[in-house]
Amino acid sequence: MTYTIPVELTTTPKAKPSHHKQAFGTVFTDHMFILDYDAGKGWHDPRVVPYQPIELDPAAKVFHYGQTVFEGLKAYLTEDQRILMFRPGKNIQRLNLSNHRLSIPALDEELVMEALKQLVLVDRDWIPSEPGTSLYIRPFVIATEPVLGVAPSLQYKFMIILSVVGSYYAEGINPVSIYVEPKYVRAVAGGVGNAKTAGNYAAGLKAQDEATLKGYSQVLWLDGVHRKYIEEVGSMNVFFKLGDTVVTPALNGSILDGVTRNSVIQLLQHWNIPVEERALSIDEIVEAHRSGLLTEAFGTGTAAVISPIGSLEWEDEQLVIGEGATGELSRRVYDAITGIQLGTAEDPFGWAIELTLS
Amino acid sequence: MTYTIPVELTTTPKAKPSHHKQAFGTVFTDHMFILDYDAGKGWHDPRVVPYQPIELDPAAKVFHYGQTVFEGLKAYLTEDQRILMFRPGKNIQRLNLSNHRLSIPALDEELVMEALKQLVLVDRDWIPSEPGTSLYIRPFVIATEPVLGVAPSLQYKFMIILSVVGSYYAEGINPVSIYVEPKYVRAVAGGVGNAKTAGNYAAGLKAQDEATLKGYSQVLWLDGVHRKYIEEVGSMNVFFKLGDTVVTPALNGSILDGVTRNSVIQLLQHWNIPVEERALSIDEIVEAHRSGLLTEAFGTGTAAVISPIGSLEWEDEQLVIGEGATGELSRRVYDAITGIQLGTAEDPFGWAIELTLS
Ligand SMILES: Cc1ncc(COP(=O)(O)O)c(C=O)c1O
Ligand SMILES: Cc1ncc(COP(=O)(O)O)c(C=O)c1O
Repeated sequence: MTYTIPVELTTTPKAKPSHHKQAFGTVFTDHMFILDYDAGKGWHDPRVVPYQPIELDPAAKVFHYGQTVFEGLKAYLTEDQRILMFRPGKNIQRLNLSNHRLSIPALDEELVMEALKQLVLVDRDWIPSEPGTSLYIRPFVIATEPVLGVAPSLQYKFMIILSVVGSYYAEGINPVSIYVEPKYVRAVAGGVGNAKTAGNYAAGLKAQDEATLKGYSQVLWLDGVHRKYIEEVGSMNVFFKLGDTVVTPALNGSILDGVTRNSVIQLLQHWNIPVEERALSIDEIVEAHRSGLLTEAFGTGTAAVISPIGSLEWEDEQLVIGEGATGELSRRVYDAITGIQLGTAEDPFGWAIELTLS
Repeated sequence: MTYTIPVELTTTPKAKPSHHKQAFGTVFTDHMFILDYDAGKGWHDPRVVPYQPIELDPAAKVFHYGQTVFEGLKAYLTEDQRILMFRPGKNIQRLNLSNHRLSIPALDEELVMEALKQLVLVDRDWIPSEPGTSLYIRPFVIATEPVLGVAPSLQYKFMIILSVVGSYYAEGINPVSIYVEPKYVRAVAGGVGNAKTAGNYAAGLKAQDEATLKGYSQVLWLDGVHRKYIEEVGSMNVFFKLGDTVVTPALNGSILDGVTRNSVIQLLQHWNIPVEERALSIDEIVEAHRSGLLTEAFGTGTAAVISPIGSLEWEDEQLVIGEGATGELSRRVYDAITGIQLGTAEDPFGWAIELTLS
């Protein structure tokens, strides 16, 4: 099946940023993609239009009942000027899993892929080329029906916007200090923690605020039932190297099935490094730290790829990991994934998708 | 302190609905209230303007990270043409509690009260007068800063919109059948369940959908930790009459501190009916049903005031309560509260606030 997506080009292109160190998610490109949904009609009218404000009724359901989902992925410019996306199919699948959980009608995955490609190609001159930079792609769905009843919306907009991303690690990878959150809970099994929906992020703001005030850069979430099993770090999945084995929390229903997490697991297996997905308690981490078994820890996510953890604060104890420096494995994983993303390293799994219109 | 709120009247007033049986939250009045927030400047520029769409950047944080809170209360027209609001101060206080939990800057409570009054007076001709009808008032805050970073917004809009509400019980109070939800969880202690924020409602859509398909009108939520303690019914608090005592789940951090719940507790105490706020398991309810101790159950909330529960479905067992009819106590509470709201009954606590500009 082929799709024709009409493109309306802007007549007032914006100036592109001259350097690429701006804060994440503040500079947007010249165009955006829109697709509408109306009950009875389905998803209709895909189009690329100039980046512009959207008009919504103040009663639109997204403002009141948070019926919305999103995704986040990146496009990279290679040295030979090809455009690569990293496993976009995974994000598109996850978008529909999130839609399902939030009672939002499924999107046609081929159309979404075509829309991603079309939009990025229209704005291809915006993709930065400095090392570590990329074009961040944000697909999202919002419920637009202007009705104040708690029920799934009969109208939606699916949109894609693009943002220029400066280098996350302009000064090299820096391990971060993490606060293990004893009070607030992000999500619980049976809830929506495994969907990429707005409410999960709103629920984390207060804990992040308080951790920032205490001088930590992120929060490590514990599960909401036992308050002891490790879930995620901020908006990243998390891995611990315990002896020769790497352990990450299993997909238990309350954490996100991260694309980076999945990629790290596959790489480790490919390298014959034992990796376990299982329940992992903070007590086990404290114990492993005491015994010297815990040598590395890192978060994984699209934004930073790998974020090494230099220390964990738990019950007034500071656990310094790997002397607070970036570990060997963290570095190896980082290099492998960014190498695939930029087309400079072996890509054994075919994760880099070159952007050409079908 | 007095506030001057500029009013821009519409030049194109809409036709008012001729009867008042329309679905909840579908018909809006001619005007709305807006107040802006910018970091460094604080909340500024309160104004009443014609009801109209709002323009937002597609990167506005509310679409992505759900940083938003809302309230819901009602205004009523008395037989002698006075306008009454029911305990608006409670809603305004709760709005700021929600703001605090969601890292949204506090609103000036006096200004909000003045805004409520001003807006309702401007649209006073929209308040329906048929029995059981009212004007639903929806104050809400949305994060508008166009930045894709998970951090509190530096810009917000606080708005109030008004919707004409038809009679909930045009055919008399009807007990509803409720599905006790075994799989999905709405909220957990440490999360945002006690704040009135969008994500809590998004999290409940799927369970409600499935219950509707099974033929139930609402879901009864159990706690996310033990999966056995009763939390809420749909978007209502819940009460059970067990022998001579009325029991309602305690405010445990994951349920909303409902204004109607609080009012029912005070009324019961005023009537010398024993009322307990405590943990209440579904097993205790099943047991009380078996022994004949459970004689009434009802939900409480602004929309329906009192919604009697005719039956509960739990583990393939159907618990019929009070022969499926509206109980005496449910009726007494309903009459007392609606009487106060309409100015026809004794108001021992001074809950009805007459709307006059200060
Ligand atoms: C809550 C949460 N966990 C984990 C991740 C990591 O997922 P991914 O590797 O797909 O970016 C994200 C998104 O970036 C997230 O929002
Ligand atoms: C989740 C939830 N619980 C309970 C209630 C009842 O609260 P109130 O009596 O203040 O309307 C509401 C709101 O109406 C609600 O949204």
